[in-house]
Amino acid sequence: MKIHERNVYLSNLEVDKALELFMDRAAPDIKDLKKEVINTVNSLGRITSEPVFAKYSSPNYNASAMDGIAVRAKDTFGASEGNPIQLKLNENFVFLDTGDPICEPFNAVIMIEDLVEIDENTFEIIKGAAPWQHIRPIGEDIVARELIITANHEIRPVDLGALLSGGITEINVYQQPRIGLIPTGSEIIEPGAPMKVDSIIESNSWVFAGMTRQLGGIPCRYQPVADDYQLLKEKISLAVQENDILIVNAGSSAGSEDYTVNLIRELGEVLVHGIAAKPGKPTILGIIEGKPIIGIPGYPVSAFFAFETFASPLIKAFQGQRPKERPLVEAVVSKRIVSSLQNREYVRMKLGKVDHKLIATPLNRGAGMTMSLVRADGILVIPQESEGVEGGEQVQIELLKSMDEIDHTIVSIGSHDLLLDIIVNLMQEVNSPYFLASAHVGSLGGIMALKRGEAHLAPIHLLDERDGSYNVSYIKRYLGDMDMSLIKGVKRIQGFMVKQGNPKGIRGFNDIKEKDLQFVNRQKGAGTRLLVDYQLKGLGINPGEISGYDREMTTHMAVAAAISSNSADLGMGVLSAARAMGLDFIPLAEESYDFAIPTRYLRLDMIKEFIRTLQSPEFKAALHQLGGYKLDEIGEVNSFS
Amino acid sequence: MKIHERNVYLSNLEVDKALELFMDRAAPDIKDLKKEVINTVNSLGRITSEPVFAKYSSPNYNASAMDGIAVRAKDTFGASEGNPIQLKLNENFVFLDTGDPICEPFNAVIMIEDLVEIDENTFEIIKGAAPWQHIRPIGEDIVARELIITANHEIRPVDLGALLSGGITEINVYQQPRIGLIPTGSEIIEPGAPMKVDSIIESNSWVFAGMTRQLGGIPCRYQPVADDYQLLKEKISLAVQENDILIVNAGSSAGSEDYTVNLIRELGEVLVHGIAAKPGKPTILGIIEGKPIIGIPGYPVSAFFAFETFASPLIKAFQGQRPKERPLVEAVVSKRIVSSLQNREYVRMKLGKVDHKLIATPLNRGAGMTMSLVRADGILVIPQESEGVEGGEQVQIELLKSMDEIDHTIVSIGSHDLLLDIIVNLMQEVNSPYFLASAHVGSLGGIMALKRGEAHLAPIHLLDERDGSYNVSYIKRYLGDMDMSLIKGVKRIQGFMVKQGNPKGIRGFNDIKEKDLQFVNRQKGAGTRLLVDYQLKGLGINPGEISGYDREMTTHMAVAAAISSNSADLGMGVLSAARAMGLDFIPLAEESYDFAIPTRYLRLDMIKEFIRTLQSPEFKAALHQLGGYKLDEIGEVNSFS
Repeated sequence: MKIHERNVYLSNLEVDKALELFMDRAAPDIKDLKKEVINTVNSLGRITSEPVFAKYSSPNYNASAMDGIAVRAKDTFGASEGNPIQLKLNENFVFLDTGDPICEPFNAVIMIEDLVEIDENTFEIIKGAAPWQHIRPIGEDIVARELIITANHEIRPVDLGALLSGGITEINVYQQPRIGLIPTGSEIIEPGAPMKVDSIIESNSWVFAGMTRQLGGIPCRYQPVADDYQLLKEKISLAVQENDILIVNAGSSAGSEDYTVNLIRELGEVLVHGIAAKPGKPTILGIIEGKPIIGIPGYPVSAFFAFETFASPLIKAFQGQRPKERPLVEAVVSKRIVSSLQNREYVRMKLGKVDHKLIATPLNRGAGMTMSLVRADGILVIPQESEGVEGGEQVQIELLKSMDEIDHTIVSIGSHDLLLDIIVNLMQEVNSPYFLASAHVGSLGGIMALKRGEAHLAPIHLLDERDGSYNVSYIKRYLGDMDMSLIKGVKRIQGFMVKQGNPKGIRGFNDIKEKDLQFVNRQKGAGTRLLVDYQLKGLGINPGEISGYDREMTTHMAVAAAISSNSADLGMGVLSAARAMGLDFIPLAEESYDFAIPTRYLRLDMIKEFIRTLQSPEFKAALHQLGGYKLDEIGEVNSFS
Repeated sequence: MKIHERNVYLSNLEVDKALELFMDRAAPDIKDLKKEVINTVNSLGRITSEPVFAKYSSPNYNASAMDGIAVRAKDTFGASEGNPIQLKLNENFVFLDTGDPICEPFNAVIMIEDLVEIDENTFEIIKGAAPWQHIRPIGEDIVARELIITANHEIRPVDLGALLSGGITEINVYQQPRIGLIPTGSEIIEPGAPMKVDSIIESNSWVFAGMTRQLGGIPCRYQPVADDYQLLKEKISLAVQENDILIVNAGSSAGSEDYTVNLIRELGEVLVHGIAAKPGKPTILGIIEGKPIIGIPGYPVSAFFAFETFASPLIKAFQGQRPKERPLVEAVVSKRIVSSLQNREYVRMKLGKVDHKLIATPLNRGAGMTMSLVRADGILVIPQESEGVEGGEQVQIELLKSMDEIDHTIVSIGSHDLLLDIIVNLMQEVNSPYFLASAHVGSLGGIMALKRGEAHLAPIHLLDERDGSYNVSYIKRYLGDMDMSLIKGVKRIQGFMVKQGNPKGIRGFNDIKEKDLQFVNRQKGAGTRLLVDYQLKGLGINPGEISGYDREMTTHMAVAAAISSNSADLGMGVLSAARAMGLDFIPLAEESYDFAIPTRYLRLDMIKEFIRTLQSPEFKAALHQLGGYKLDEIGEVNSFS
């Protein structure tokens, strides 16, 4: 395997140009789209290929709009309180219910409420009936031959009602395109298959299948194909026959086992290899036997955006449609986002509304971060010609969630603890209308977010080295000009996390240098890192002597995972994280993990709900199960004003 | 059948109180919801019943983030342009592709682009590698035991990716509730069955089925049941066993054949009969054997709102959810809407954005007007305590379409002609991003809408009695202070529409009084009505002598339908409408049907598209097929400035 065997250079074609080129060549002309006739009752969500005109009128006869009697209007003229008129059954009127037909010679309806009963066969009225009153004339709702819905219309439930009422039992729609999905790669395994050390569970094709369904296509997923030129060639050749559009996932780059581009070149034509997008650069757009084929990169976030950019418009085009654009919303970016002039960039954003200001914060930008898509409230698209946006800049965000949900979300920024996940869940489980969105930037990061007005509350555990107290002195120092309160949280135990059974016999920081151990640290501004520094200072150890001091993780769980996977020997964290990853725990200190909050937010219903949740028996039970927490003061509010 | 056999009095319970009462009694407690375990790959759109925590980390090993080589970081320290370091295959490095595992003793990756090849087994580097660079540490995306999604979460495609990557192959979700739908009524027929004179095609249950699917429920539709107490009792008893929620459609009022309320009372308990809503008043809320049952009125619009108000929240509650609220948008009401203090009213609204002002116009408010739901862009909910809204008032509208679509819609208000339907369709068929929404209030109504700034253009055919000219003098008279243009449309022939074969030998207006005929007219402000008046005046006939002069229809097709159904003998209209309804046509006059437009709108892309459509061969071909039009000047623009 040598460098020159690899084609390391992809093109860097502008996204819009690549899409235009691809759609021009690969999208079908609307006149050539495949159509079919289906039963109207099964047509929900399908797209009409022709306008639909009513076959019958609705109502199809002149119908009573009320329960009452049918009369000849001229029999009733002149009726008044002073001159009541009597009407005889069968001679002057017949009974009818709402919807009954009006038959000759009758031409008006009097409501039952307006009748005075004289005897079984006689009614008296004191008001004349206007001709055609309380009658739904034929075609009042739908006139035969009238347009009910246009071509290229997605059929909704209410359309079904109008179509059936208009006598339309069969309807012309576009066929749903079949999308072939071929996962490739020798390292991927099917969900549920036994894991080997380097196994990657194949998941992208299922994301594509879900997206395809939502776009009205029919996904056709094939079994994963190993990195074998001949096998992949056979599978692609077959799938091209069986589908309208073909997606080959991974192998789209220029690595030694990235066969897709050569295969498409052999079987058909490569239009584009490499687009100016991040994530998503190593995308291939091609055609085989007139069928569009897309080679999509393997990283899940790249895969998502490549599919959305190139497959979605194509799937819609096969149904005569264009993709629905996401609603846009104006938001203020909470921090600088640097982007390259080389690429259009798709940044997953968390949105929060604090004091009527919508704030957007970038999530992890890595192409492999599936969870950044799961957690995202919106997408910020940074154009290719831009170097990024400044903190405080106003931008447009493509919304992934409803603004209603975002409006009802408590924005929590600060230190991470597993108990936050429990609160998030409990607030969902009790079916409260409120949500908690929690970003983890460490305790000091949370304090700064409150200062900038970007969060409702900040979970913090900040040790004051001078007196060993927690949190209060930091709030006073950094947020002294704000009217602040503290919602008391938990006392929790911090300690060393080490491998099960503590095989290296670790007792403390002194062992790290002595035994040539690897430490794993937390990021700057994290309360746990302050605790590490406080301990090192107390022991007179220089951080430079700690191998791994600069290796930073952003959560307790990530530190625990590093130790569990042998890439580090020890780290500082909480008992619950150690337990969750099956590690041993050496207690070191007890600290206060509380919630700093501007006092005015205590009035918000969603904050009241948050405090109720903290004090609920369910929450206490869940923390008890996690272990390592004391809950004596939980939910109590201290104000500093 | 007598008055006292009918229970004419329903209660008039406030909607929110009725809903609260019903949900309190009928909605299941979230703890009692039925759950099931399903394969993750089949879980799109389902609702989680429990939080989901990752089983595995992702990546599950320390993986290369790049194509390149794995090295020991310390072997590379100090490399620079002045001091390049050579690395030997297998001794100092191994090759790897993106995603390959990093194995001991290596702890960093150098990208292939940063290598200089010396020979097959030797690379040179000019920059040191930091420990853990270009490595995706275990759990970088998902840490084992981490929360992936909460309980009560609707599973999206991206969630599938995270769940499968986290090792979740099976997932706990709420069961989809089964919704039994029983259509009732002796007059209803199945779609496609032969029509009798008083047949009503059963369509509501299919609308409910579609709504149920969109809400995540499983619809179970039964064959329609005739108005027979015993039959209906048996069907309800059976359906209660087979479903979680039961909907009985029609028979919910207090007419002589409205059995539903008595049946529910016999089999279970009636909680509410009659709610303060319009449409939707005669709704029944009850419980049989612990199962919620809703008696829904028969008029399609009543049925829609009753289902949405009472069934939707229940279907969602069975999945631990509440219904999604529609996005709200601020709009200005174009005319006064009077509402009763007795009811909350649901008014279907057409929205149009003209000069950045969003204008909302009520559609037909009848409970039987299915098409008002099909055409609606939004819903205005007028609270019970309100007497309505004034023209020009700012209101909140629940959006049914995307604002993007509304922003791209030409608002046409004025006279109706079938050619408008053709334009609407052609603009859809060419897959243009623009739409045409057309409201029919007559020519003068269109002129007034332009004056108030509520429309982009007005289709008009207004005869100037003084000189026989069309349209221009009206624009100058009413819109003289605006810079106006006229987009030329068609010359079309107006005439009498009479029954096929003209059995009554009608020749003109003089016959109406002589032969005791029934005329049917158009509404005030319609160009066709002006033409009628002009003709009558010329003949010296007093409108009072014309029987049916006051019977007003709002479209040519509605006039044609009235004649076709024998409820009138003649009316004035265009050839295309007569042909569409199989009527004979007696030509009377040729008139100009043009589009008045403020000149500044000619610059809009969507108006340019409109003119292109008018001039397209497809449009001309369609009009030729309809017949009765001359197209000499179509699409030409005359300005009056």
